[in-house]
Amino acid sequence: MNKDNKKINAAIIIIGNEILSGRTQDVNVVFLSKWLNELGIIVEEVRVIKDDEEVIVNCINEVKVKFKYVFTTGGIGPTHDDITSHSIAKAFKMPYGYHKEAYEILEKHYKKGEFNEGRKKMAKMPTEAKLIYNPSSGAPGFIVGNVYCLPGVPSILKSMVDGLKNEIVGGKKIFSRTISVITVESEIAKLLENTQSQFKNVEIGSYPFFRLGKIGVSIVIRSTEKKQIDDCCKQIVSFLEKKEIHITER
Amino acid sequence: MNKDNKKINAAIIIIGNEILSGRTQDVNVVFLSKWLNELGIIVEEVRVIKDDEEVIVNCINEVKVKFKYVFTTGGIGPTHDDITSHSIAKAFKMPYGYHKEAYEILEKHYKKGEFNEGRKKMAKMPTEAKLIYNPSSGAPGFIVGNVYCLPGVPSILKSMVDGLKNEIVGGKKIFSRTISVITVESEIAKLLENTQSQFKNVEIGSYPFFRLGKIGVSIVIRSTEKKQIDDCCKQIVSFLEKKEIHITER
Repeated sequence: MNKDNKKINAAIIIIGNEILSGRTQDVNVVFLSKWLNELGIIVEEVRVIKDDEEVIVNCINEVKVKFKYVFTTGGIGPTHDDITSHSIAKAFKMPYGYHKEAYEILEKHYKKGEFNEGRKKMAKMPTEAKLIYNPSSGAPGFIVGNVYCLPGVPSILKSMVDGLKNEIVGGKKIFSRTISVITVESEIAKLLENTQSQFKNVEIGSYPFFRLGKIGVSIVIRSTEKKQIDDCCKQIVSFLEKKEIHITER
Repeated sequence: MNKDNKKINAAIIIIGNEILSGRTQDVNVVFLSKWLNELGIIVEEVRVIKDDEEVIVNCINEVKVKFKYVFTTGGIGPTHDDITSHSIAKAFKMPYGYHKEAYEILEKHYKKGEFNEGRKKMAKMPTEAKLIYNPSSGAPGFIVGNVYCLPGVPSILKSMVDGLKNEIVGGKKIFSRTISVITVESEIAKLLENTQSQFKNVEIGSYPFFRLGKIGVSIVIRSTEKKQIDDCCKQIVSFLEKKEIHITER
């Protein structure tokens, strides 16, 4: 990877017992990681933590100094187990209460008489936070320092990230190419090791797959430098052809 | 949750750039968490970290003292980016090299002349590790201290965990019941908060869903004590019926 890009990194913190228990399959990491990649931001760590104030506070305090951006998902809804907003306020030692703008947004969003206690809770957050608007269901997320708090429901989260583009300064875009071959990893291990040692600015990953009864390997080459990826791929393909290894994707 | 059970906890460490980049959707967390739940072990944290020796060593050294069990997935294959085994040896300050039994297993597994350098690498690990046998593809995982190292390929991982049952001392089984209703979270937030404060040994989670064009909430009640779950559910259902909220699953 390009050294300049290394610093523009991020951590994703998934807050929710339902992910830890295996009840719910997380899909937000894949979405957020791809979206951040497009902006030239490398996700360097993901954590899934439980709905527990002490755990959230400690985790946020650790990752907010370790990474340039931190994205949290989950725990900003109306029920008793939604404790992310309160915990973030505590981590940043900021006052927690009704956020004026968030309150107004929610008051407008709901019909008269429907803005009940549970819904009002969604306007409670660090009072000085900057809002992340929610075009699909009203209740906003928020930004405090370098921490971006998003909901856990994937469809709502997806609808909100577009509004973040102006808030985030990314790096060089990370490009990626995949070469898939019908072989086993051990047959190409030496090649990949040698190639990796020659191309310091690319990251070569090797991922076995079983598809339609065939065993294969996807070789993934990633870099901020397109030319480096091209040169690296050329070398790999030329070796594979010499060895008569069947390439199914390049 | 039952206090006695709280200590029998685990962390899952997913090692692999392909998960962090969003290229690959992790499915091992759901599988391992459900499997550990059955054994009465609560997964308290998940981390996804990159294929980087320093990162792996630091992470393992932190979580191995924080949790009773640590499960790692990924990075024990034959290619240059598979550095889990070496990193685990380093974290435990143990010698790294060919594991006698692992070497013999792999030598037997492959036909003569096919036991190449890449495959031999899969026999390299902390030399004193205990093996986790692999009925599907030969290459074993291993145990060092309270750290259980498994492969990243889901089908292979699944085939290996059965052999771990005798290695792991679990706790009381964690039971779970779900009540699904057609309503929004804010309508039942107060009920759930009150019920949670009355039932200290259960954990009540509230998860909104959008299914077949309907908005609903799944209320998940978890505990090691079946009777507590039953009593808690009875109270919730009676409230829902009084409020005429449509229950679709109980």
